[in-house]
Amino acid sequence: MTALNETHDPKLRSWVASAQAPGCDFPLQNLPFAVFRRKGGVDGFRAGVAIGDQIVDLAAVARAGLFTGAAGEAAQAGAQDKLNALMALGQAAASALRLALSRALREGSQQQQALQACLLPQAEAEYDVPARIGDYTDFYTSIHHASNIGRQFRPDNPLLPNYQWVPIGYHGRASSIRVSGQSFVRPCGQLKPPGAEQPQLGASKRLDIELELGIFVGAGNPLGEPIPMAEAEDHVFGICLLNDWSARDIQAWEYQPLGPFLAKNFATTVSPWVVTLEALAPYRVAFERPASDPQPLPYLDSPDNRAAGAFDIQLQVELQTPRMREASQPGASICRTSYRHAYWTVAQMVAHHTVNGCNLQPGDLFGSGTLSGPTMDQAGALIELTEGGKKPLQLPGGEQRTFLEDGDTVVLRGWCEREGAARIGFGECAGTVLPARAMS
Amino acid sequence: MTALNETHDPKLRSWVASAQAPGCDFPLQNLPFAVFRRKGGVDGFRAGVAIGDQIVDLAAVARAGLFTGAAGEAAQAGAQDKLNALMALGQAAASALRLALSRALREGSQQQQALQACLLPQAEAEYDVPARIGDYTDFYTSIHHASNIGRQFRPDNPLLPNYQWVPIGYHGRASSIRVSGQSFVRPCGQLKPPGAEQPQLGASKRLDIELELGIFVGAGNPLGEPIPMAEAEDHVFGICLLNDWSARDIQAWEYQPLGPFLAKNFATTVSPWVVTLEALAPYRVAFERPASDPQPLPYLDSPDNRAAGAFDIQLQVELQTPRMREASQPGASICRTSYRHAYWTVAQMVAHHTVNGCNLQPGDLFGSGTLSGPTMDQAGALIELTEGGKKPLQLPGGEQRTFLEDGDTVVLRGWCEREGAARIGFGECAGTVLPARAMS
Repeated sequence: MTALNETHDPKLRSWVASAQAPGCDFPLQNLPFAVFRRKGGVDGFRAGVAIGDQIVDLAAVARAGLFTGAAGEAAQAGAQDKLNALMALGQAAASALRLALSRALREGSQQQQALQACLLPQAEAEYDVPARIGDYTDFYTSIHHASNIGRQFRPDNPLLPNYQWVPIGYHGRASSIRVSGQSFVRPCGQLKPPGAEQPQLGASKRLDIELELGIFVGAGNPLGEPIPMAEAEDHVFGICLLNDWSARDIQAWEYQPLGPFLAKNFATTVSPWVVTLEALAPYRVAFERPASDPQPLPYLDSPDNRAAGAFDIQLQVELQTPRMREASQPGASICRTSYRHAYWTVAQMVAHHTVNGCNLQPGDLFGSGTLSGPTMDQAGALIELTEGGKKPLQLPGGEQRTFLEDGDTVVLRGWCEREGAARIGFGECAGTVLPARAMS
Repeated sequence: MTALNETHDPKLRSWVASAQAPGCDFPLQNLPFAVFRRKGGVDGFRAGVAIGDQIVDLAAVARAGLFTGAAGEAAQAGAQDKLNALMALGQAAASALRLALSRALREGSQQQQALQACLLPQAEAEYDVPARIGDYTDFYTSIHHASNIGRQFRPDNPLLPNYQWVPIGYHGRASSIRVSGQSFVRPCGQLKPPGAEQPQLGASKRLDIELELGIFVGAGNPLGEPIPMAEAEDHVFGICLLNDWSARDIQAWEYQPLGPFLAKNFATTVSPWVVTLEALAPYRVAFERPASDPQPLPYLDSPDNRAAGAFDIQLQVELQTPRMREASQPGASICRTSYRHAYWTVAQMVAHHTVNGCNLQPGDLFGSGTLSGPTMDQAGALIELTEGGKKPLQLPGGEQRTFLEDGDTVVLRGWCEREGAARIGFGECAGTVLPARAMS
């Protein structure tokens, strides 16, 4: 588990002035990673680190030879078009690079002039999915979501008996993961509304979001060699925002017995910036279970996990309708919650995923599952917020929504804030629904 | 749908004499693709084509410039360490290369001497997984398997109402797919035997096989653009054997509501040789549904699919116990069936997978799902063959098996044979169970 070190000092200031702006997601204490290029794409994608409203171009840092040792090696790995090589170096390498950048970006650094030449304004950049994702696993770590949605899919049996024992997960689709800014066509699929005699092909009428975090794997493990709890977080590179778009009508008809498939694999959106566990260290909180619940089996338990295995990451879902955009009105916040309510931690996901010997590889992605909190306004999906479409959301301007309509944009945001620590932000994860294709 | 052409002529003979040996899987009419290197690995993996007991080294063919046009371009793509580049060129390219190879390998070919220099005996080769598999999807296309296993997991509800409408599939794990010859440790996981108060971590006691075929995607489709039935097979590169090893006790406890996860993702084995749909053309058969069953929805139907969308591929499972190996006895055949019994065809899998806009990429892999036939001796998994472990298999030499024991090797075989057509074989897909790791 990452201990606090000098990079966390909230008094540190950067010579990049925007890093000190109120509400800035990317102060000197964050330093998250992305892959980017200049808008228009004349240059290639390479890794960058956010500072204020700027990006430190790691390929340029590597070319300039600004850092030596582990930090220099990590910057070299960042010259590639995906973060996989950097991720594969393990947490110590990313940590060394963050420390070197933290020092070089501080007010008074002698490297200011050299590093200044390696900056690109975020306003001039575009991003790609941060890693070549070999495998994408979606977990189901919110007991509130599992109960809410279970009540709708299985009224008689909402929370299954395995839930409190098993960090439930399943494999998702890597090919359709795109970075924030993604637009995707409303999916078609087999729909069988209640009472219909037989299914028909049609465009989903119950298109939903899922507010999730994405967890990127750093160093992998060989096939056949489980990762124990004590080492689990050493295999995690960092965390991003993730929207697991879901077609509830397709899901309801297809999901038994092997789980969701076409209801989910048409699009998944991730934020470009990956925030390291190191940056999140000030926001660790105890992992607590109600005493009446089963306690984790030994392979899912550790003193560190109990003491501080969870993260208090604030999360928000904003819905922007076409009418709001036309009227230049801000979007509507439809959910506020925190990652601290999850029933299973990042370390438990890693330990469970590998207990059977399954191998993780650098760049693999976990979804946390929909991060609904304990109250209904903390629910991270429309199917929960609207009680299955029965209670429409009332939006500013008189609009209503049950599920998503064409042209709707959904923006996820995440940040950590508390007295005595620097704000650590995740930026945005936005996606827009396009009309379904005409069916032939 | 691939029409018969000159490469199918059963009278064709190769100057590679072993291609005419009785029972040879790889006559001139087959020409399947693999990636291989010389045993020991001083040279790198590259693509090869099987002929008799030899491999045509496509990297050597490309270097020698033996072929021009589309066939030459395809050979060039075969110089890489995975088949993805060749797969991405589409079916016409592979077809051109097969035709050029068919002609060059025929008795009397003027290219015999040049091509002879490009051969390596299979006995001197080792193989890798044929493609860099971006996503692996496992289907569930045998209604007999779905009913047999459904009866055990849900006695009151064996065949779910969606089965006859939806080609059920789910995403599997790509990272743990290995080529024939794989050994893997028996997985550990949460087990909750009937009657137990709570689950415990332990080594699986109900380790099983699943006899499947693997279908490799050739040319992909852009995200958002479905592949219609009429074009579905154009996106398929070829078919291999696949063993989807399964821990039934882990599966029973974890699989609801999101499907199997750790019960499957510890190991999947594929055969090295990928047989093209073109080579299989003489073994196409009608796709038939009992008249009392729902007929496929229009997006899963086509005249070609009805006329000849299925393949009569003979399949066999052989079990070799350590005692058999010590006594130098042959393995025991425990299942014989045919792919013709599948409830959904290859084309239907492609059309269904993409109807929501999901993008397929070259090298993606589909599993057919366990290919159990209509009678119990045609079942492709031990859980079916032994009725859930209640009726042990009686093996030659007096041994019994319910589920797999440590040291057991399972070999899948597949072939097509009929009067008036050349035999088309798939080779072998073998894997061996190692003891579970000691738990810390």
